[in-house]
Amino acid sequence: MTDPNLHLVVMAGGSGTRFWPKSTSKRPKQFLSFGTAPDAPSLLQQTLSRFDGMVPESNRVVVTTRLLESAVESQVTRAVSILAEPQGRNTAPCVYWAARAVFEKDPKGVMLVMPSDHTIPRLADFQNTVTRAVAWAKSHDDLVTLGVSPTRPETGYGYLKTANGLTGVEGSGGFGVEAFVEKPDLARATEYIQTGNYLWNGGMFVWRADVILKAFDDFMPEMRREWEAAGRKVEVAYPRMTATSIDYGVMERARNVVTFTLDCGWDDLGSWTSLEALAEKLSARHEAGVVTGGQAISVESYGCIVDAPGKLVALLGVEDLIVVQQGDAILIAKKDRAQDIKLIVEKVKATRPELA
Amino acid sequence: MTDPNLHLVVMAGGSGTRFWPKSTSKRPKQFLSFGTAPDAPSLLQQTLSRFDGMVPESNRVVVTTRLLESAVESQVTRAVSILAEPQGRNTAPCVYWAARAVFEKDPKGVMLVMPSDHTIPRLADFQNTVTRAVAWAKSHDDLVTLGVSPTRPETGYGYLKTANGLTGVEGSGGFGVEAFVEKPDLARATEYIQTGNYLWNGGMFVWRADVILKAFDDFMPEMRREWEAAGRKVEVAYPRMTATSIDYGVMERARNVVTFTLDCGWDDLGSWTSLEALAEKLSARHEAGVVTGGQAISVESYGCIVDAPGKLVALLGVEDLIVVQQGDAILIAKKDRAQDIKLIVEKVKATRPELA
Repeated sequence: MTDPNLHLVVMAGGSGTRFWPKSTSKRPKQFLSFGTAPDAPSLLQQTLSRFDGMVPESNRVVVTTRLLESAVESQVTRAVSILAEPQGRNTAPCVYWAARAVFEKDPKGVMLVMPSDHTIPRLADFQNTVTRAVAWAKSHDDLVTLGVSPTRPETGYGYLKTANGLTGVEGSGGFGVEAFVEKPDLARATEYIQTGNYLWNGGMFVWRADVILKAFDDFMPEMRREWEAAGRKVEVAYPRMTATSIDYGVMERARNVVTFTLDCGWDDLGSWTSLEALAEKLSARHEAGVVTGGQAISVESYGCIVDAPGKLVALLGVEDLIVVQQGDAILIAKKDRAQDIKLIVEKVKATRPELA
Repeated sequence: MTDPNLHLVVMAGGSGTRFWPKSTSKRPKQFLSFGTAPDAPSLLQQTLSRFDGMVPESNRVVVTTRLLESAVESQVTRAVSILAEPQGRNTAPCVYWAARAVFEKDPKGVMLVMPSDHTIPRLADFQNTVTRAVAWAKSHDDLVTLGVSPTRPETGYGYLKTANGLTGVEGSGGFGVEAFVEKPDLARATEYIQTGNYLWNGGMFVWRADVILKAFDDFMPEMRREWEAAGRKVEVAYPRMTATSIDYGVMERARNVVTFTLDCGWDDLGSWTSLEALAEKLSARHEAGVVTGGQAISVESYGCIVDAPGKLVALLGVEDLIVVQQGDAILIAKKDRAQDIKLIVEKVKATRPELA
């Protein structure tokens, strides 16, 4: 049974470069499928279907930029609403707009704010946590964030420092949040893991629309001011709104933040190398490494990541390479340089912008 | 002025695997262009045009296999004859058939027997040597071979050991041949270079048709026997003819072999790595290495060889790779494994034969 007071807000305006050439400026990560099945759903489609049986289709909103609006349209059903931002302004304006839309439709509505480009292998565990978070948000004027149970001393994520456990909800895993912590160095991340009091900040939120709008009024009062001054015209309001993250603009300042611990194999797919951890789930393991698209044959090659849908990739005497083909572009990168794909994309933008 | 007694015989039946996937079983090396110009002539076309102004078009014969006959037709003018072998049987049957064809047309004809898949950068030097070889062959009952002036102690070629210089021809560079020498090890090759008495055996021959037919009768008498027993029907004769090389069957046994020294930048394009030496001529040099097809961009990448016509290849943090794309196949090989591409091709034949 879906809950008519639940509203899914999927943020799908991002435009990363880390998966180039599979991702491009017109087809960023959220629109991609990773996996060898030709009809595998995209990360955006997976994000939406994750809430089947929970959020009615007509209560689903995808916030994106105008550049990506038609890409979203082609991947979602007609019942899903699309809010197309005139330009990307980080997450705070996006959440503000969505919160106003939800509040106008359903003043008691609970928003589930979700990124569109992560993977969640264990769906039942995820839904279980969301259900508890929703129950809390309905009955408390709190900002709920889902805190990911960390599995390694990752230096690429922010952390949530937890306070006392919550009382009054069934099951465990609910805590107050004492602080939002920036990406740590390795020593500090290792310490965080050892204390057991830290969770990864995965950017997933559950709150009533009225509660987050109140928080905006408290910490970013200019949002309401600009919005109403613009007569609610998004073209006028957007360029004037503060381009910052919801974390920085609201969450780090608010005192009514709680978290529910999420333990579901979550991964933000930060780069090609994160596919290695998912290889088993994708049935993508190969003697030469991981093949998430196309077919590979190899002779004395190891530790590679291959994505070339419809192609045959032959590897001879190579190790730890990322090999990606999409359309007219082919990337060959050493795996430990995955974070520098952006340097390649800059060069592509300069010389062959249609491929960037 | 072309010479009506000259007859060009181009051997184009070879089917190597060293340039896979640019070369395939249906499109071996001789049909390929190396170079970034989209209309660059193939190696076969270059071989034919090398004799413009020397051999009349109607005196040109391409010997190939039936599998490759239509590929040859698509690359040569209609004046050129094609002899399509029922199957490849090495070079001796091929030369025998061509020699009979030339002799029947022109009993005094001089044959220029040339491989179809080599490069010769300095055309004038080549033609100069050929002219002297032709003059000798017309007036002597000798088997003339062009001996390539060696530039390095190559272990991948056979060598010709020269004897005394020839007398009675203008210019220098003509020698008797004392012996044909098999591919040497490095120590021996180095010694050969130092003595100055050795040339590379490039498989290029100049002789009168009657002289080579006499040599066949002396050393491979079964060739005439099978040919005539089969009523000159190639389908019947070919399977019965000895499948060996002209070198092994005739040249190594004959005593009337002479050579003219060829110094023209000749290269047999034995593998992808041989393109590095040709990079300057091909205008193919790139900061990351050599790009003989398509476009490359790179970040901290060195010593690579890229051939991907129409594609953009991006290299990030990689060294000494061969990257080749053709149709649905992409090869990534470590450069020092270029000789092992055949291992890859065997696997392709087993799993995706249409790409081999």
